[in-house]
Amino acid sequence: MTNKPENSMSIKRSPCPLAASLDYLGDKWSLLIIRDMLLGRKLYSDFQQSPENIPTNILADRLKRLQHAGLVKKQLYQQHPPRYEYLLTEMGADLLPVLQALGKWGKKHIPGTRIMMKAEVPSNKESE
Amino acid sequence: MTNKPENSMSIKRSPCPLAASLDYLGDKWSLLIIRDMLLGRKLYSDFQQSPENIPTNILADRLKRLQHAGLVKKQLYQQHPPRYEYLLTEMGADLLPVLQALGKWGKKHIPGTRIMMKAEVPSNKESE
Repeated sequence: MTNKPENSMSIKRSPCPLAASLDYLGDKWSLLIIRDMLLGRKLYSDFQQSPENIPTNILADRLKRLQHAGLVKKQLYQQHPPRYEYLLTEMGADLLPVLQALGKWGKKHIPGTRIMMKAEVPSNKESE
Repeated sequence: MTNKPENSMSIKRSPCPLAASLDYLGDKWSLLIIRDMLLGRKLYSDFQQSPENIPTNILADRLKRLQHAGLVKKQLYQQHPPRYEYLLTEMGADLLPVLQALGKWGKKHIPGTRIMMKAEVPSNKESE
């Protein structure tokens, strides 16, 4: 259903896998969108309801970049009116251990952080 | 030898540990500086010699931010002329599993990446 190749990533700064990963994921928002998708969020409006209040222009840009990189696929799930959902590819879902490691670090070292329950983030009901 | 408190991080966008971590580490360069320090680099000039060619203004800014967050400490190692080295705190060194997970993901999914040998990155000899 996606019309992008699975993987369109390439080396930019150096062959170091960490540097290459950061070329695609090194910002404050991309991994949070991945987090939401791993939690079952699929719709544009779901991502907007997350507690970090992602600005709509940044959300649109990051979804496009994640799609282009092959981490996310956009899929039509309703014809009339047309509605799309965003799903992780296998490559995107493979980021789970990264999110777990960074979350574990944050929980240990940043005062006041806590694991958020699924109930605290919006359900993926069919809103807008 | 550091005159900053060990941990001056706090919650900004949400209590989610991942979001809070990205507030401090969500950019293209910070984790690369941490990588270099984990490899034994200590000097400003060492970081400049890494293959990604970090611009000097970004390096200065990130080192300051990492210090302020308590991840890095700046230490005088020679009096005349005064010379400083940058060392990871325990909190900074604790990022190793994050770097490993992200590096592993990149190696698996980004064509052309490869683990770089220690010999390919500059040694921490006492250059400038």
